[in-house]
Amino acid sequence: MTQPIHPIDVILHKRDGLILSDAEIQAFIRAIVERTADNQLVTDAQIASFLMAVFQRGLNQQELAALTQAMRYSGDTFDAATLDAFTPVFCVDKHSTGGVGDKTSLLIAPTLAAAGLAHLTPAGVPGICVPMISGRSLGHTGGTLDKLETIPGFNTQLNLTQLADTLRKCGAALIGQTPRIVPADRTLYSLRDHTGTVESPFLITASIMSKKLAESLNALVLDVKVGSGAFMPTYEQSKFLAQLMVQTGESSGTRTVALLTSMDQPLGRFSGNWVEVWECIDIMQNKRHPMSADLIDLSNILSGWMLHLAGHTPTPEDGAKLADKILTSGEAWKAWLKIIEAQGGDTSVFNNPEAFHQSCHPSRSGGPASHLFTRTLTAQSSGYLAAMDCKQVGWAVQRLGAGRAKPGDPVSARAGIEMHAKLGDKLEPNQPLATLFAEDESLLHEPEAMLRETLQIHPTPPTRQPLVREVVTANS
Amino acid sequence: MTQPIHPIDVILHKRDGLILSDAEIQAFIRAIVERTADNQLVTDAQIASFLMAVFQRGLNQQELAALTQAMRYSGDTFDAATLDAFTPVFCVDKHSTGGVGDKTSLLIAPTLAAAGLAHLTPAGVPGICVPMISGRSLGHTGGTLDKLETIPGFNTQLNLTQLADTLRKCGAALIGQTPRIVPADRTLYSLRDHTGTVESPFLITASIMSKKLAESLNALVLDVKVGSGAFMPTYEQSKFLAQLMVQTGESSGTRTVALLTSMDQPLGRFSGNWVEVWECIDIMQNKRHPMSADLIDLSNILSGWMLHLAGHTPTPEDGAKLADKILTSGEAWKAWLKIIEAQGGDTSVFNNPEAFHQSCHPSRSGGPASHLFTRTLTAQSSGYLAAMDCKQVGWAVQRLGAGRAKPGDPVSARAGIEMHAKLGDKLEPNQPLATLFAEDESLLHEPEAMLRETLQIHPTPPTRQPLVREVVTANS
Repeated sequence: MTQPIHPIDVILHKRDGLILSDAEIQAFIRAIVERTADNQLVTDAQIASFLMAVFQRGLNQQELAALTQAMRYSGDTFDAATLDAFTPVFCVDKHSTGGVGDKTSLLIAPTLAAAGLAHLTPAGVPGICVPMISGRSLGHTGGTLDKLETIPGFNTQLNLTQLADTLRKCGAALIGQTPRIVPADRTLYSLRDHTGTVESPFLITASIMSKKLAESLNALVLDVKVGSGAFMPTYEQSKFLAQLMVQTGESSGTRTVALLTSMDQPLGRFSGNWVEVWECIDIMQNKRHPMSADLIDLSNILSGWMLHLAGHTPTPEDGAKLADKILTSGEAWKAWLKIIEAQGGDTSVFNNPEAFHQSCHPSRSGGPASHLFTRTLTAQSSGYLAAMDCKQVGWAVQRLGAGRAKPGDPVSARAGIEMHAKLGDKLEPNQPLATLFAEDESLLHEPEAMLRETLQIHPTPPTRQPLVREVVTANS
Repeated sequence: MTQPIHPIDVILHKRDGLILSDAEIQAFIRAIVERTADNQLVTDAQIASFLMAVFQRGLNQQELAALTQAMRYSGDTFDAATLDAFTPVFCVDKHSTGGVGDKTSLLIAPTLAAAGLAHLTPAGVPGICVPMISGRSLGHTGGTLDKLETIPGFNTQLNLTQLADTLRKCGAALIGQTPRIVPADRTLYSLRDHTGTVESPFLITASIMSKKLAESLNALVLDVKVGSGAFMPTYEQSKFLAQLMVQTGESSGTRTVALLTSMDQPLGRFSGNWVEVWECIDIMQNKRHPMSADLIDLSNILSGWMLHLAGHTPTPEDGAKLADKILTSGEAWKAWLKIIEAQGGDTSVFNNPEAFHQSCHPSRSGGPASHLFTRTLTAQSSGYLAAMDCKQVGWAVQRLGAGRAKPGDPVSARAGIEMHAKLGDKLEPNQPLATLFAEDESLLHEPEAMLRETLQIHPTPPTRQPLVREVVTANS
């Protein structure tokens, strides 16, 4: 006969710097999920107080694992091991902490799905399954779901049965969070958002990892951004977050690797919604634009780690080479079409993505096609593209209409930016730097000024950081 | 043109250990007071997050003063300087952090009121005014209002005009908090109570001092309890709280002194409600019971500091002597009757307080008088009363019905404890230790067991602490 645990005692213990037991953490999360309007087992004010106490006091590895597990099991979970198509099946996913122009998911999902096909799978190795549950644009970062939803008919709101069907058919699926997966995170996140408790590495880890682990993954590759466009303000903080996430994943039995990657400029050619899908279509159709080189590199590196962890290649480098082969051979393109069709998407728009960009409906509400306004920013002097605040570029994309300032805001399908130069590129006066797209001409002014301010041309070339700065594994 | 200050930014700044500006603190408190159900300028969750951030990060002296002032001016304030009876008038009050059997307010208010009468006031010294705004019993501590409300007809719920009238007539008034004085504290306190943010010395100081300073005091004497019955768990924490309160009072122009006093056993003879009034009646009628000696000492010492700060005596020690003279001379008794009558109380019950104890109505709801159940605890062995957990004695008083576990609970007028021995007293077997009173026999059992457990008889006498351990002033 154990005493019931009251939320107030959990708050007091964390407030005073004590170590919370697994039972205390479970009781607190259970109170959040089981409370009703009539029975406030724990109030919003108590949750906020707890979150600030955790923000200030931190969590040790055992507490963080317990919090992540309690959140993971606060609602439905998905287990690909129950799928009958693959026996055994290896379930792997990728997660990024969010960037500008980061569309690697759109390339990685079909690449891994293709690699998991029987004729590409090495003998004696399990098939691959990629249940990619993605998020939406927020603030200066883009969201995979907003990009995919520019494809007419594409449905990201699958339930777990539909997810299983799609995985069985395609080996990968690209869907949104369901209301029944990790409901505790929905409550915690909405409170963190307005109580000043977002930026805790412990709370970020529990939020991300609980949702990823609810997919019952065998392996997870994390893309933790560093640089001016990253969520965490310093390299050290990004690395600490990466270490927490890797430890938390490994402690729950999921092989977890984190790559610290540069987000000091937009990844690839386009930043926006449909324009990012367009860029990926070109890559998968082997029409590689020079501005897409860093995107292709990063996608292949991340895919390579996933393939390596799945046992398909002896090293991650071999995995990256295999991923590039799958992209160039058209196998990824075939897998992409299969996924899009399985989730109801109209693949005919892929025939002429540029025309669709010019003409596509401004929103999913189906209103009449409107004029697309564009403006091109050019270099004022000769020199090297030397620096930018990548977060400012992300905010410019948001202000053009492609992103959202707060959850629930609508986003424009066609708005965005095309970059014409990368950091370190030599520029001549009047050479194009970036082209802005918006569905309302008045939306161009502020983003244009923001870009003009942040894109710096210097007489000498900048020191460049490698795309992958560091790899964090369980043993590093 | 200044930017508006948003509550979330105040939270973020305190969270990150920055120093809050006066404007930020004022904006946060204003949002609390001005919010409505339809316009949540700041949510309960945000307030809770702020409170936990303050709990963890603390406040510097400037921030604490700003918070106290913002709360002080969040509603109505009272200023005795506007009274026409005294010109000029010196406004002084006493506040205790809460104890067991602590009824000094009932002696101090009439003592100071008597001292402020023209024939006792030294030439050229202002008259005295004591606007004593008191609180209710909570947890293991008693409350002055609950004691006074056992007097039939006595009204503690005066508005500020009635308070001014009573002060003009009597020189002192004993009233409760009005809803319009320091409304910010009401919101903050109710949230602190259930979010684990009560025990912050900074938040305690702001709560106490905002309410006391809203009385526009010239001087304030604080009785900060130390020992097993004190709210703060260690001597050092009590002293730190005393220093914060003295600095905060002085910085707003109120002469403030704090006495650290022993609360290691109930003060005086009785602990309860009417029984405490009874004890004070006996003292003011010069029927001094030996068990009341410490109570009389402490009342006189506190009154002495108040008289000294008001300029009536050259030293606090002279003030204590004057206070004792006022008590023994019957001047305090006369002032007491005047205050009680002015606030509507029936003074006929003072004729036989013991009979009123036996017969008085169990509650102010006016139900029929019920039987009073008593039980006397005796010493099991010979030796010295050596130790007790005074907090446990306070909880026993509460469980007998005299106190409340949560705000709003009803309290019994007659329940309580009479102590028959003080720490250090020599005891023989079967000598009475304490008598318990309750209006329901079943309520006696648990308190009896609590007292039996906590009252320790040892073969050797204990080391005793002085009643006043230390005096904290602006210069100490």
